Amino acid sequence: MTDPISAAPVSDPLVADMVPRILAGERRALARAITLVESGRADHRAQAAALLEALAGAGRQALRVGLSGTPGVGKSTFIESFGLMLTAQGLKVAVLAVDPSSARSGGSILGDKTRMERLSRDPMAFIRPSPSQAQLGGVARRTREAVALCEAAGFDVVLIETVGVGQSETLVAEMTDLFILLMAPAGGDELQGVKRGIMEMADMILVNKADGDLKPAAMRTVSDYAGALRLLRKRPQDPEGFPKALPVSALEEQGLKSAWDEMSTLAAWRREHGHFDRRRAAQARHWFESEVREGLLARLHRDPEIRAKMDALGAAVARGEAAPAAAAAEMLAALGA
Amino acid sequence: MTDPISAAPVSDPLVADMVPRILAGERRALARAITLVESGRADHRAQAAALLEALAGAGRQALRVGLSGTPGVGKSTFIESFGLMLTAQGLKVAVLAVDPSSARSGGSILGDKTRMERLSRDPMAFIRPSPSQAQLGGVARRTREAVALCEAAGFDVVLIETVGVGQSETLVAEMTDLFILLMAPAGGDELQGVKRGIMEMADMILVNKADGDLKPAAMRTVSDYAGALRLLRKRPQDPEGFPKALPVSALEEQGLKSAWDEMSTLAAWRREHGHFDRRRAAQARHWFESEVREGLLARLHRDPEIRAKMDALGAAVARGEAAPAAAAAEMLAALGA
Repeated sequence: MTDPISAAPVSDPLVADMVPRILAGERRALARAITLVESGRADHRAQAAALLEALAGAGRQALRVGLSGTPGVGKSTFIESFGLMLTAQGLKVAVLAVDPSSARSGGSILGDKTRMERLSRDPMAFIRPSPSQAQLGGVARRTREAVALCEAAGFDVVLIETVGVGQSETLVAEMTDLFILLMAPAGGDELQGVKRGIMEMADMILVNKADGDLKPAAMRTVSDYAGALRLLRKRPQDPEGFPKALPVSALEEQGLKSAWDEMSTLAAWRREHGHFDRRRAAQARHWFESEVREGLLARLHRDPEIRAKMDALGAAVARGEAAPAAAAAEMLAALGA
Repeated sequence: MTDPISAAPVSDPLVADMVPRILAGERRALARAITLVESGRADHRAQAAALLEALAGAGRQALRVGLSGTPGVGKSTFIESFGLMLTAQGLKVAVLAVDPSSARSGGSILGDKTRMERLSRDPMAFIRPSPSQAQLGGVARRTREAVALCEAAGFDVVLIETVGVGQSETLVAEMTDLFILLMAPAGGDELQGVKRGIMEMADMILVNKADGDLKPAAMRTVSDYAGALRLLRKRPQDPEGFPKALPVSALEEQGLKSAWDEMSTLAAWRREHGHFDRRRAAQARHWFESEVREGLLARLHRDPEIRAKMDALGAAVARGEAAPAAAAAEMLAALGA
């Protein structure tokens, strides 16, 4: 990190204290750092940027896995079983959630940990529930930064879970290396329920509940999805035979190891062929650009003088004393834009 | 227009020439002015802002009517019949279209006028097809400005038509005084096809094709929608009995006058109770704020120096030499934000 662009001041005592602790994998420091990146306060934002910059120097990389599934597919049970299978292999696993609705539903903040009781007690695992923030843009930034913190803390796999409401799937796909769709067994005609756009984002489809009475339906659903995936045009980032549809049983802990092996195979192929790094580079650039856009727009709300001028001009426009375009031009001139 | 906020320089010769011609209702000048507001060039934008500012002083106001309907409901035929009914009453009618898809479909630019052959030859009417611009934000600005130009040119009614794809309905509802939904006769179970959000935006539902074989179905559909509208909570901007569902036949020119009478009644009630002006004030303020936001973001693309810095930092982020948040902070500092 000798490039002047990325030279970060670690002069802040809080940041200077956090850096070695996070690099040592201390969970309390990691939890506090995530709380810091979740804050919207200007001084916290500056500390968060300095912290992320300092930690980026460690160059640690986890496999970032996005997981989407509608309520009822058994997502929590899957994450618990899948996470425990990974930690049993000696891998450190972090679980983050993107749930733009959590501010409204409220429950998931306490809910996440109790849903995954065994995994949350596992010393190799770290579970961080959704922040109580409804705005998707804010959730996106917080999650991207939390992922970077987990990587610096030495986690091998970062699972990012989303309930799959509206745009949250795209958001998660844009910050992960692999995007997995978890589905429930379904009748053949229900297949169309998956939006084409989401099918096209998926790097793998896992059909859960391949156990007991539902097993035959799950196996049929797997072959239905496998057929549907074959109909999609092959993507350059996929080797022959991918994306795949596979059956799993989170309840009976079946198929989880196979699913992980396929994910590892896919990730390894992408690393080897340059797709992995290209995707990360494009994601980082996208992140930078959206930070700049959000930062520019934040000016309109932050600076009291700018806010007062916006309010005065807005009121003049509302009273019909100024045309919107002319008032906007005046505001932009005052902003130096 | 003595307020310093709205004092507009009409020093530009093109603008100085256009102002009296538009105020005199010259269609060629109006058409040229709309072409000007459709342009994205910086000098054209400045001229457009000066023109709009100068014309706002005239204080002319049309009734802005939004009209949405999916393909097949007979929207063009309705606009032609409805427009001719209005001009026969001595009202000047302008028709604008918001069709974000027109850049792709291509045809509608030539299509609009041939679809409404009689109305386009009517000296009391002015029809302006969609611009070939796919970006919804750009279409929004152009349409809002074109409406202001038509008002200055002395039109009594400005009809803004949209095909009702995705967000275009919300956009049209946000720039009009009345928002009308045009529907086709349907079976009772098809009623659910209208999204609740769009029903809630509608100030009136017109069921077209209440003629010939379809008349019974149309009348049934009207009472179905009337029932559905009664289930929605009464809005403060509506007098008792509104929003209404009414049958029309664009083909046989039936029910158009009644529909217009109801629109006039609703508009008059809203004017009397302050809702009309409040809605316009809120719309103007919203327009101002979105112009400022778009103008701020436009800086990132316009200024070659800023663009070069964005590109350099973006490339450094993509190469992993800078963290996105830190690079964004550097960019924002350079922008003075």
